[in-house]
Amino acid sequence: MEIPEQDAAHMARAVELAGRGHGSTSPNPVVGCVVLDAAGAVAGEGFHAYAGGPHAEVVALARAGERARGGTAYVTLEPCDHTGRTGPCSVALLDAGVARVVIAVADPNPKAAGGAARLRAHGVAVTSGTLTGAAERVNEEWLTYARLGRSHVTWKFAATLDGRSAAADGTSQWITSPEARADVHRLRAAAGAIVAGVGTVLADDPSLTARPATPAIDPSLTARPTTPAIDPSLAARPAAPAIDPGVPGRTPLRVVIDTEARTPQDARVLDDRAPTLIAVADDAETALKADLLRLPRHANGLDLHALLRELAAREVVSVFVEGGPALAGSFVAQGLVDRVVAYLAPALLGSGRAALGAAGVETIAGIHRLTFDDIAPIGPDLRLIARPTQPGREK
Amino acid sequence: MEIPEQDAAHMARAVELAGRGHGSTSPNPVVGCVVLDAAGAVAGEGFHAYAGGPHAEVVALARAGERARGGTAYVTLEPCDHTGRTGPCSVALLDAGVARVVIAVADPNPKAAGGAARLRAHGVAVTSGTLTGAAERVNEEWLTYARLGRSHVTWKFAATLDGRSAAADGTSQWITSPEARADVHRLRAAAGAIVAGVGTVLADDPSLTARPATPAIDPSLTARPTTPAIDPSLAARPAAPAIDPGVPGRTPLRVVIDTEARTPQDARVLDDRAPTLIAVADDAETALKADLLRLPRHANGLDLHALLRELAAREVVSVFVEGGPALAGSFVAQGLVDRVVAYLAPALLGSGRAALGAAGVETIAGIHRLTFDDIAPIGPDLRLIARPTQPGREK
Repeated sequence: MEIPEQDAAHMARAVELAGRGHGSTSPNPVVGCVVLDAAGAVAGEGFHAYAGGPHAEVVALARAGERARGGTAYVTLEPCDHTGRTGPCSVALLDAGVARVVIAVADPNPKAAGGAARLRAHGVAVTSGTLTGAAERVNEEWLTYARLGRSHVTWKFAATLDGRSAAADGTSQWITSPEARADVHRLRAAAGAIVAGVGTVLADDPSLTARPATPAIDPSLTARPTTPAIDPSLAARPAAPAIDPGVPGRTPLRVVIDTEARTPQDARVLDDRAPTLIAVADDAETALKADLLRLPRHANGLDLHALLRELAAREVVSVFVEGGPALAGSFVAQGLVDRVVAYLAPALLGSGRAALGAAGVETIAGIHRLTFDDIAPIGPDLRLIARPTQPGREK
Repeated sequence: MEIPEQDAAHMARAVELAGRGHGSTSPNPVVGCVVLDAAGAVAGEGFHAYAGGPHAEVVALARAGERARGGTAYVTLEPCDHTGRTGPCSVALLDAGVARVVIAVADPNPKAAGGAARLRAHGVAVTSGTLTGAAERVNEEWLTYARLGRSHVTWKFAATLDGRSAAADGTSQWITSPEARADVHRLRAAAGAIVAGVGTVLADDPSLTARPATPAIDPSLTARPTTPAIDPSLAARPAAPAIDPGVPGRTPLRVVIDTEARTPQDARVLDDRAPTLIAVADDAETALKADLLRLPRHANGLDLHALLRELAAREVVSVFVEGGPALAGSFVAQGLVDRVVAYLAPALLGSGRAALGAAGVETIAGIHRLTFDDIAPIGPDLRLIARPTQPGREK
């Protein structure tokens, strides 16, 4: 089916709007919507800004008012057909008298799906599959969560050009720049959980919070960017920048992968700055006072697939894996890394801790192939974003 | 001194012209020249295309003819004042009646310098320091050679995103793409010498020639690019592209760093496809039939500074170091890497040979800092070019 040029252009705008919800809609998807009047002029735009807030379609229809009648709605995700915290969007579109609905991605959530069918049953023309790739990409975290029933995984590392995360004596402050570290904090804040291995906890005693703890970072770099270009009336709260610093006050869950329950009781991850889960083996003996998540063992560690299913059951849509080449190697080996974010410093070490530990590869044929999706200079460093060539090929 | 806008623009053009000589002027510098007539209109352009061929000034003056009289010449490097294979350019500029000469970089070569002084002595207005940075960059290999009396060093490596050059079992074909490997061959061909360690010779038996030996590479990728946009009359031979594939027939010297003289007599590097030097310790005992270069020992290997001085004495302006993390580590440790060219594949290994071996760094304060200068996608891979933050800080 050929996609009319104007359909693609309006859907691209809807995808752009959807992206503004990044980091604050969890456990909901990000969704964008553009409504045209019967003559084809843009009458309203909207996006889903936060869980519990109005859906994108409702925002756009409210902006369009009577002009929506006989018009077209572009939605990045199939309109919901169920009554959750808000009413069904399918009904809202019917009530508004929209004549045609263009959908990028079908809703994989059985509770919410059925919107397209209800619209068709009431005589609305429904077009599917417009700009599906872009709409899948903008919503990749939630779609992984909804389709696979597990949290989406971003593995972040910072290393030298030769792949080292620490010098031979273990020192590592600082390989990357303040700008890169501020960027990491923004990504962390947008995640549902921050995951680290107990080795990192024992070695560095990190707080694993999204806000920088060190005054060495220029505070202007981490201040919430203002986005005056975005019409604030498009959503119930001011729109977020492309990399969302998170909703003020929202705190990602902290998760420590700690097979043998070695986390010290006085570790910073157990302070009261954010909730924390300590994932231990189901047969681990411990007197640790903490929220324990007992998981089956796998290879030398824990079954990470079970971890991600448990986190998904707690509505953790996305996790940010940091800290520990061994833990990163386990995620990679188990085929559970959906996105790699690498901060490469223009520097060489030649020895010291490698960024990635054993990842189950013995020979070159077993190499984990990725695709570079984004390359950006961050201060003097480079940020490379890559994704598996065969996504979702879990092992 | 403020640089008039038109001076910068004409010098930028001269720098662009200079770059066309890359890879074929050795042991001469690359030089570009633009000649304006007395009214300020461009009358002639030229660049130095190959050693023994006419200098840039001579080419541009020939194109300008009588229009050069009373005009201005922009030259990226101070005009030579000595008679080598061609006559002094200072005299050519005087004979042509040029009234003003603008120079980007002073000639560090005592044999050739003095051109500016002779011009001034004959009443020509001489301006120095216009676009010096760009003109130094385009000529970096020769300037290193001329100023430091040693060959310029490019270290190239190909690795995964996590810095591995081979899998745990030693297999490494192919981490990077055919496009990246073809790009390597182009860079190799432009070098005066290709340097590898004996470990690489023993492990892989490479031929270390600039032309690809494997039919797996699409020959169209390595074919000499045509450059129809360049006026062939600007130089005596057709101009070269930005990354020069080398003069047909010119073959880089092959150099094996082989402290204990372990190169097998039947190694491919000793075939007749190119000249080869085997660098051994001055006290190494060997019956190897090959051109031996005896060098002092340094740390666990050879004194690489002595190697580069010896190669410079043989008019090797630039070397391309490949093959062997240990050798690369030695070059880095001795502060002798002037440019790093990294081909990063979007892939993860987690174990196996690191791209860079021990480079004399024990703690993070000793890290070798670089600056990223160029980032380019090459097929599915990335090519990153970086240079030391403090160039020429030899150790």
